[in-house]
Amino acid sequence: MADAPVHADAAVPEGLLTAFRAYETALMADDVAALDALFAAGPATLRGDAAGLLVGHEAIAAFRRGRGGAPAREIAAVHVRVLGPDLATVVAELRPVAGGHGLQTQTWRRGPAGWQVLAAHVSGAAPAVDGRVWRVVGTPLVAGAAEGPLRGRGVAVKDLFAIAGQRIGAGVPAHLAEAPVESSTASAVQVLLDAGAEVTGIARTDELAYSIAGANPHYGTPPNARVPGALPGGSSSGPASAVALGQAAIGLATDTAGSVRVPASYQGLWGLRTTRGRIARDGLVPLAPSFDTVGWLTRERAVLAACSRVSGRGAPAAAAPDVFAVDPGLLDGLDADVADVFRARVARLTPEAVDPGDVAEALEAFRVVQAAEAWAEHGAWLTAHPKAVSGAVAERIRAAAGIDADEAARARDALDGARERFAAALEGAVLLLPSTAAPAPRSTAPADEVDRARSATLRLTCIAAILGAPALSAPLLEVGGAPLGLCLVGPRDSDDALVHLAASLG
Amino acid sequence: MADAPVHADAAVPEGLLTAFRAYETALMADDVAALDALFAAGPATLRGDAAGLLVGHEAIAAFRRGRGGAPAREIAAVHVRVLGPDLATVVAELRPVAGGHGLQTQTWRRGPAGWQVLAAHVSGAAPAVDGRVWRVVGTPLVAGAAEGPLRGRGVAVKDLFAIAGQRIGAGVPAHLAEAPVESSTASAVQVLLDAGAEVTGIARTDELAYSIAGANPHYGTPPNARVPGALPGGSSSGPASAVALGQAAIGLATDTAGSVRVPASYQGLWGLRTTRGRIARDGLVPLAPSFDTVGWLTRERAVLAACSRVSGRGAPAAAAPDVFAVDPGLLDGLDADVADVFRARVARLTPEAVDPGDVAEALEAFRVVQAAEAWAEHGAWLTAHPKAVSGAVAERIRAAAGIDADEAARARDALDGARERFAAALEGAVLLLPSTAAPAPRSTAPADEVDRARSATLRLTCIAAILGAPALSAPLLEVGGAPLGLCLVGPRDSDDALVHLAASLG
Repeated sequence: MADAPVHADAAVPEGLLTAFRAYETALMADDVAALDALFAAGPATLRGDAAGLLVGHEAIAAFRRGRGGAPAREIAAVHVRVLGPDLATVVAELRPVAGGHGLQTQTWRRGPAGWQVLAAHVSGAAPAVDGRVWRVVGTPLVAGAAEGPLRGRGVAVKDLFAIAGQRIGAGVPAHLAEAPVESSTASAVQVLLDAGAEVTGIARTDELAYSIAGANPHYGTPPNARVPGALPGGSSSGPASAVALGQAAIGLATDTAGSVRVPASYQGLWGLRTTRGRIARDGLVPLAPSFDTVGWLTRERAVLAACSRVSGRGAPAAAAPDVFAVDPGLLDGLDADVADVFRARVARLTPEAVDPGDVAEALEAFRVVQAAEAWAEHGAWLTAHPKAVSGAVAERIRAAAGIDADEAARARDALDGARERFAAALEGAVLLLPSTAAPAPRSTAPADEVDRARSATLRLTCIAAILGAPALSAPLLEVGGAPLGLCLVGPRDSDDALVHLAASLG
Repeated sequence: MADAPVHADAAVPEGLLTAFRAYETALMADDVAALDALFAAGPATLRGDAAGLLVGHEAIAAFRRGRGGAPAREIAAVHVRVLGPDLATVVAELRPVAGGHGLQTQTWRRGPAGWQVLAAHVSGAAPAVDGRVWRVVGTPLVAGAAEGPLRGRGVAVKDLFAIAGQRIGAGVPAHLAEAPVESSTASAVQVLLDAGAEVTGIARTDELAYSIAGANPHYGTPPNARVPGALPGGSSSGPASAVALGQAAIGLATDTAGSVRVPASYQGLWGLRTTRGRIARDGLVPLAPSFDTVGWLTRERAVLAACSRVSGRGAPAAAAPDVFAVDPGLLDGLDADVADVFRARVARLTPEAVDPGDVAEALEAFRVVQAAEAWAEHGAWLTAHPKAVSGAVAERIRAAAGIDADEAARARDALDGARERFAAALEGAVLLLPSTAAPAPRSTAPADEVDRARSATLRLTCIAAILGAPALSAPLLEVGGAPLGLCLVGPRDSDDALVHLAASLG
């Protein structure tokens, strides 16, 4: 940087370039304390990049602590626009060591603490593809029909579906390494192609889709496009981030225990978990077949409606009841701010109170059955590949391995009872609830915090999973500036009707 | 935007938000005059984005005239940092209508012309993949050997080489539409994989590789990563831009009349056109087999050296002469600034003057033979697909169709004579010349200007093509702030030696 030419439109105030260079040196050394000292204190300081804008010194400092250093770079040129004796805008042309170019704009002011940055905006070099979100991408990867209601819409296909000529990775490198090239395309993909959509690419999933966090230790955690630094939600993390980032119009995904609804909620998207059995599941890696179902994530409600309509063609169409219901017991377990936002939003729908009984007990039975089925599907392979999955997913798999037939049978009985109770309580109504117990946790949150968030959310999401019912997550709530889904659970085969009904809630 | 919340750290100076909104309205209407008026006049005004930094009101205005409007967007929030009664930084969180998010930072100052922008930095939403550069990308698309001198290096493969499981597009959509899925991988690709490299993706080429401009009317022109708004150079445009953008370490490409050397020169890369016949050409769509040869583009000389070494294994190794030569006649035809920069750079190498005779005549014979061979390769298909290629390539193809056997035979004779003359004149020396006649033309340059640049450059590049000799483009010259390659032409099979020799020129 010593050599970088400096272009200034007036005499550069004393000390500015020294401070600028000190910042650059600290950045390359990841000297967080020095960086913090060179940014103005207080809530008005700004720092933005492709991931979003951080507001306030505290948020910026927290980001730096979690980042682990910036990519190595050189400064090709510096442009100073002198705004006054103590004020300047400094624009630096960056040359990342890994190639490409970048740009950094900073507003500097001299105050009692010396020269400090008030606002910074950084653009780095873009990768060929964001490997946290995608495994493979084309322009398109698979072309669709020339005409149809989804004409030209790009689809991010969760890496669980077969696409002719491609492998299935299921979020696990060891799985991908052994996967054969598929000779045919899953029906759920093909029906979108036939409707004019195209496959943009294959997007990431949590390992074996057995998580709702959205993290993946092998490929990196996809960014939450709405909340910088937050988890994207999973297991349909890649499709959700791709859609929220504007890189695809449709995320084709699956939902076993919330894998469509959770990322929809965390990233402000429309998401539909379909009626179980409504959409063909050929060419799809299962997790727990009693609960697995296909779903979509979109930015536009009309696109979701078209996905549901073309994919459900030939299946029965049930109406959505014109009565809304809420379960006050479910809300009691939520943070007050979430419950308040939810209650305020649904008040004008004058929902009835319903009592589907003890959800915690039903959830426990659900977890046991899900685990037993996941082990039946993947146990042999995971035994042969003991290090293939990691972290929380590995723990769940280990627990699943210990479930015996009696325990599974008892859980199935309990689940049958819960299903009857839920169905009776919800008959003739559309259940309203938050899609997740809270907005997205920070991606740096400790494991126990993520696990608590998971448990609190599964209490909500398991109801539709146990019923095999359709559940729509609508991006209609906001808590502390972060999106949160409003969930509608309807009778079986009311998929299209639910999406239609939601139009009136906007 | 009327609804976008405004967060300010002090009372917002009068008129600032009105000017900010006027700018946004003008941007969405592509009202270039209004936009120009809202940016401060003069050479110090700055405007940067992912493509690079524009300096001066004139450059910014020219960019706007050529852009055809900005992507539609909404403003989600506005943050104002008040710097004085007449100064502010305004940061806007953007919501592109096509999804994702963006950020805009502007420094505003109030002067005699009212509020105006002094510096602007815009980040838009990134696409899943830049379709101007790539056709398909993976993480990786094809894995390589676990060990080897190119371990972990990503390769951008020009869309002319076979990769098992993929089609060949050759820069022409109609070609791609009919292309079969390849069952095996071209040797030139495989040898890199065997050396530990991985295929990142398949990158764009000019139509049928029959151009050196780098434009492609079907997929968009890849960006020049070093000169915002300039042509990337072709026909290996996609591999070159991918490497210059840091999205791949190696561009695997071809060079018939300059297709490696021109994009290397225009984007400041290392590029090697190999000795013709040295590297196997199986699985490669030909253009003019008498001249076609494989080559690579890299940011690092050492990586290029490794590509040449592993790919040329088993071929003879010739030494590079320790005498440099220049052809004063070639330099006479160049712009004075290019010739001056070149002469100054090579002076310390004390090159000998050589005279290979009339290059213009040789070039004419080269063009005829190249055209006749291109027609022999592609004529039947192009006759059946008369609209498959366009613009300058279509014109060249039409001309090629009119070349009869006698004319081709006469040109071959002339070429044989030129080859003998060139070889005799250059024996025992490494010829030094600029890789291209000038830095990259603007991507909005009219067709006749691009054609003049082509002719002037072919006069330089045809020498190695006629000789079948290796030619290295080294990123060692700069003209008016833009990169220009220094080209070294050596004896046949001196490929490795030329790359080694260039280390001493840095």
